[in-house]
Amino acid sequence: MENLSPLTHGDLAGQPVTAVRRAIRESRYSGQTSGLGMGLLQGNLVILPEALALDFARFCQRNPKPCPLVGVSDTGIPMLRTLGADIDIRTDVPLYNVYRDGELAEQLTDITGLWADDSVAFVLGCSFSFEDALSAAGIPLRHIAENRNVPMYRTNIETVPAGTFGGAMVVSMRPLSVTDAIRASEITARFPEAHGAPVHFGDPAALGIGAMDRPDWGEATEIRDGEVPVFWACGVTPQAAVQAAKPPLCITHAPGRMLITDIPSGEVGHHATDIPVARSIEKTGI
Amino acid sequence: MENLSPLTHGDLAGQPVTAVRRAIRESRYSGQTSGLGMGLLQGNLVILPEALALDFARFCQRNPKPCPLVGVSDTGIPMLRTLGADIDIRTDVPLYNVYRDGELAEQLTDITGLWADDSVAFVLGCSFSFEDALSAAGIPLRHIAENRNVPMYRTNIETVPAGTFGGAMVVSMRPLSVTDAIRASEITARFPEAHGAPVHFGDPAALGIGAMDRPDWGEATEIRDGEVPVFWACGVTPQAAVQAAKPPLCITHAPGRMLITDIPSGEVGHHATDIPVARSIEKTGI
Repeated sequence: MENLSPLTHGDLAGQPVTAVRRAIRESRYSGQTSGLGMGLLQGNLVILPEALALDFARFCQRNPKPCPLVGVSDTGIPMLRTLGADIDIRTDVPLYNVYRDGELAEQLTDITGLWADDSVAFVLGCSFSFEDALSAAGIPLRHIAENRNVPMYRTNIETVPAGTFGGAMVVSMRPLSVTDAIRASEITARFPEAHGAPVHFGDPAALGIGAMDRPDWGEATEIRDGEVPVFWACGVTPQAAVQAAKPPLCITHAPGRMLITDIPSGEVGHHATDIPVARSIEKTGI
Repeated sequence: MENLSPLTHGDLAGQPVTAVRRAIRESRYSGQTSGLGMGLLQGNLVILPEALALDFARFCQRNPKPCPLVGVSDTGIPMLRTLGADIDIRTDVPLYNVYRDGELAEQLTDITGLWADDSVAFVLGCSFSFEDALSAAGIPLRHIAENRNVPMYRTNIETVPAGTFGGAMVVSMRPLSVTDAIRASEITARFPEAHGAPVHFGDPAALGIGAMDRPDWGEATEIRDGEVPVFWACGVTPQAAVQAAKPPLCITHAPGRMLITDIPSGEVGHHATDIPVARSIEKTGI
């Protein structure tokens, strides 16, 4: 293989998605995807053996706010035809977490060697889509301004279980003024494939959250006078459910390293049969 | 068993859903459910063996407009816990169609004898929910005024296939003034679990529909001067896909004889984790 030098986020920001995807596919970029492929839907990834796939599909159907399913591969087929013209799920995520029996075993930039005849890939919408829309509406997002990870908390809201999958819903928190919280609810409600409207705002105790300064994932964010904490269902929920179910092998994206699709944000889901890419791909028989 | 006399639609209209469900469960009512259990989500039913269930779940995920999945049973478990406190899918649909190798073999009011350890029930949202909302907004629906079935047509829009499931999208048609067509688009867009906004209005040929007076299912409806035909994705699409796939056994509802759930219309889907019934059932461990 030729000598391919690593690329930075700055190198790829503003580049067309094909260039970003090539850099990721060639393992030249393994960083976070926020701010890349702007305007395109990004997704969380969960790869499971087929024997667990029906239960996981049921888990997503029953918990659409934390688990908005935007694409499912055919069994053993790594090309995600409904999400793009040329998406190979074995190579097109910057960094993968490999879990064995529920424990993180390794991180890889390419999982071609682990993809099997019975592998099924699930892609779930992520909050990057709605964060773009909030920023465009002038709503300030502190964790982005401070270049930190959004804080995430385990709640007392039980997901509706399916098979071995279940457990607590995880939420992400963004501090906003009340006016911005209302506007953010209005805007994010339009993104059901990116967790939709908040599940709560105001009182962390109502969700069973104790210390706001000690998030279960991500980094704490200051809540200033006049602000309320606003909580959205979070894509870590299915990852936590999968880890608790302890399947022999499960592969996910590493946090913040998402799959970038060809689907414009906000146009997926209920409009899937209108998506030109899915239709045109079908016709070319890729 | 005690002697239970048949009941009519008139006997059940305005009755609480528990009374309607009991009448259906006792096979005292096998008629259509339009206008019964008002304000509650009704659903199309498809029961398949588990071996085909993952592909059918994928088919629904890829074609959410014709196939809005609102509930999936656990394998072999006939109680649909996420759709109501006491829904037994073996008895709670007024009339079932039993397909063997893709051919209609019989119609039954109770399929307890056919439910198997590997059965999986899929419930898909139906247009009754949005028709209630259109009527409430004063938009006239001719097929209802004339007490006829809505006309349905096979289109040239190919669904995105999954496994053996695929084929053409089927649409239902309602003639409306242009003003009402716009208002109806606005209203039905709010019901993604009931097929959402129309897929087309105006030109049947754009969908590959030849003769409007010869629908593929249902009954023809007059289109008057100043009206346009408005087409919505239709729940017959998955039934046609299943029939074409010719599984050894498939059970569906009979046309117009839907499952009535406990879920308020318009509150399902992305809000499923907020639904009190699903949560409270979970806690009682039914």
